[in-house]
Amino acid sequence: MHSTTHYTRHHLFTSPPALSARRRASLRSASTVRMALREDGPTVAVVGVTGAVGQEFLQVLSQRDFPYSSLKLLASRRSAGKQIPFQGKTYTVEELVPESFDGVDIALFSAGGGISKELGPVAVEKGAIVVDNSSAFRMDPNVPLVIPEVNPEAMSHIRLKGRNGKGAIIANPNCSTIICLMGVTPLHRHAKVVRMVVSTYQAASGAGAAAMEELALQTREVLDGKEPTCKIFKQQYAFNVFSHNSSLLPNGYNEEEMKLVKETRKIWNNDEVKVTATCMRVATMRAHGESVNLQFENPLDEDTARQILQKAPGVVIIDDRELNNFPTPLGVSNKDEVAVGRIRQDISRDDNRGLDLWVCGDQIRKGAALNAVQIAEMLL
Amino acid sequence: MHSTTHYTRHHLFTSPPALSARRRASLRSASTVRMALREDGPTVAVVGVTGAVGQEFLQVLSQRDFPYSSLKLLASRRSAGKQIPFQGKTYTVEELVPESFDGVDIALFSAGGGISKELGPVAVEKGAIVVDNSSAFRMDPNVPLVIPEVNPEAMSHIRLKGRNGKGAIIANPNCSTIICLMGVTPLHRHAKVVRMVVSTYQAASGAGAAAMEELALQTREVLDGKEPTCKIFKQQYAFNVFSHNSSLLPNGYNEEEMKLVKETRKIWNNDEVKVTATCMRVATMRAHGESVNLQFENPLDEDTARQILQKAPGVVIIDDRELNNFPTPLGVSNKDEVAVGRIRQDISRDDNRGLDLWVCGDQIRKGAALNAVQIAEMLL
Ligand SMILES: NC(=O)c1ccc[n+]([C@@H]2O[C@H](COP(=O)([O-])OP(=O)(O)OC[C@H]3O[C@@H](n4cnc5c(N)ncnc54)[C@H](OP(=O)(O)O)[C@@H]3O)[C@@H](O)[C@H]2O)c1
Ligand SMILES: NC(=O)c1ccc[n+]([C@@H]2O[C@H](COP(=O)([O-])OP(=O)(O)OC[C@H]3O[C@@H](n4cnc5c(N)ncnc54)[C@H](OP(=O)(O)O)[C@@H]3O)[C@@H](O)[C@H]2O)c1
Repeated sequence: MHSTTHYTRHHLFTSPPALSARRRASLRSASTVRMALREDGPTVAVVGVTGAVGQEFLQVLSQRDFPYSSLKLLASRRSAGKQIPFQGKTYTVEELVPESFDGVDIALFSAGGGISKELGPVAVEKGAIVVDNSSAFRMDPNVPLVIPEVNPEAMSHIRLKGRNGKGAIIANPNCSTIICLMGVTPLHRHAKVVRMVVSTYQAASGAGAAAMEELALQTREVLDGKEPTCKIFKQQYAFNVFSHNSSLLPNGYNEEEMKLVKETRKIWNNDEVKVTATCMRVATMRAHGESVNLQFENPLDEDTARQILQKAPGVVIIDDRELNNFPTPLGVSNKDEVAVGRIRQDISRDDNRGLDLWVCGDQIRKGAALNAVQIAEMLL
Repeated sequence: MHSTTHYTRHHLFTSPPALSARRRASLRSASTVRMALREDGPTVAVVGVTGAVGQEFLQVLSQRDFPYSSLKLLASRRSAGKQIPFQGKTYTVEELVPESFDGVDIALFSAGGGISKELGPVAVEKGAIVVDNSSAFRMDPNVPLVIPEVNPEAMSHIRLKGRNGKGAIIANPNCSTIICLMGVTPLHRHAKVVRMVVSTYQAASGAGAAAMEELALQTREVLDGKEPTCKIFKQQYAFNVFSHNSSLLPNGYNEEEMKLVKETRKIWNNDEVKVTATCMRVATMRAHGESVNLQFENPLDEDTARQILQKAPGVVIIDDRELNNFPTPLGVSNKDEVAVGRIRQDISRDDNRGLDLWVCGDQIRKGAALNAVQIAEMLL
């Protein structure tokens, strides 16, 4: 599952908006460090290291030469004692307890919302900056919800202990929200999005490592004419599509859809934007696709949109109409960039204020681990 | 692949709009015939009988006790001589030639647009009524484009030779259009659709029997760590999603999407309705899913929408928010009805004029063979 895709800093941070000169410089210096284990680096803990996102954290930290003076790998009691090789050393997974955060500068959390709620504040109390992948704190008005390419300014007041700061939580947005807004925000800045209709095509990985295994197992079973094993999901996933497995709210939307609605408003700091979403799981392994219909306040033609997206950090355009070559979940798997294609004037509008897009992104990577590590880099 | 699902006439023709009493009566009597091979039935030819749709034609004809006095099974020279058992007799597939249509009353075509263009007019010349599954004649202003539950009146002038009529072509709409309009038309009749944003989740079967085989083969290969065989599609289909493989037009839409746009206007006989669509293939075998966002001219709340759809012929509602139970491609496979769920007020509009839906239908069945046989039934 883990490729050796090489990270190209170029795409992601060509022009990080509103990023302070200090931070920009520190990002640049971080990228030139060859030896990531170094005395002046922060102490780092990875919480939920044995999971789909946790494993990706290690990949991303390594590929980006993230500096650290020490590294703690944490998971549940079930995994305590497991050996994990990382950058030439072997680490032993420790059971997560409140004391795990003693002396930790940066804690990357991906062990579920319950763990974040319980131990996030403990880590903060001990002076750590928690970058949280769960939904536990995303809508907390005191917690910044950050996509580094979109709203880095939201966390500009947060500093590491060693830099006169103190413990704090920074939330990573939901994966569908990150992937959608990576493609849409550059256009929004230009022509202001009034309304957005999103339909998602979400992968198994969004539900964790075990869900990916179940999809593979089920697929084999179905091909062999056997009954599919349904443990994680209550229905057959192989060769199927189903409405996202999160709970339904009284308004008929599921939680995943409402995250897209609410997180977009918080990240854009804009309470007026209208969003509706339909979230579906499709039988893919690790990257999401999203069909996005946009209505703008101001005119925006597709050529201008393409020019804007060409310059957007962390975005690549794949839009070859002649060869019928567009973004696919498979094509963006293990990639850092969010891919945008099928960029076209919405023919259901005649005011030049509509566009249709198809966006794909690896949600374990940019939708989770990479975005969180980018947040951590801004603290350096 | 072929189940023994029993057809329930109840759902499909509870209230066929604008259906003449004569036709209604003949439909009813047809359904009570036990012995479908009978002297007073029409002579029927199935063109492309060895294909995905052709095989389904036989299933549907049999399940619906469609009356016929003789049956001709036609395909390419490759298949000539093949034996096909049907209703207790064994038929030999014949090579399709112009003479195949001598003495044929009803010809069900599903052998591709080229064959339809070439031999459809020949069959008409010989006095047959052609029900065509290809896109060859859909937008021809002289050819009715019919979904029996939606616009049966469009073909009311067409009669069999034996009933003082003459040869004619009736076109079956594109599968995505049929499935979408089955769910949307009842609401359109009530509150008038102004604009529709559709994102599709289309199955392999839409590209024929060989595409389904390729998806199964590729999936095995990928699970075994091998390179996937790509013959029908030029990229990996297993565990992937990709933009529909039809050609792209200068406006950036692909042909499949434009079919949804144009066919909707023709079927509704309404040139004003605004439609935009994004068509994707997902790794499912035989049924399509569609996420549909609707804007209405008049107010329509979700409870009224549900009541309307409950009474709609050929539609079932699957919409259990508590159990998170909604339509799936797998759930509707081999079923006649189009399933509608996730019915909810669009929260991106505050004027009570928007709804979101999720629609699934078996496109070999209602999207192709069943719809064509229903059309043929209206000729009886
Ligand atoms: N998957 C994604 O794409 C994605 C995207 C965005 C956000 N997230 C969020 O990230 C979190 C983890 O997701 P995932 O997909 O990586 O799930 P996962 O593959 O199931 O991994 C869960 C991780 O949490 C650990 N854990 C569970 N219970 C624990 C406990 N009581 N104490 C300590 N550690 C515990 C597990 O350790 P053991 O191995 O010891 O059980 C494992 O390391 C979730 O909050 C999820 O919503 C995931
Ligand atoms: N699949 C769907 O869901 C669907 C839905 C709506 C409409 N349609 C339309 O229905 C048509 C058939 O689709 P399909 O999915 O059934 O395709 P398919 O599985 O590939 O079957 C094609 C059929 O056409 C026959 N054929 C091909 N070339 C021929 C020739 N030169 N002369 C006579 N017969 C020939 C084939 O016979 P051999 O076996 O002898 O080659 C076979 O019976 C297409 O026009 C398609 O657009 C399909």
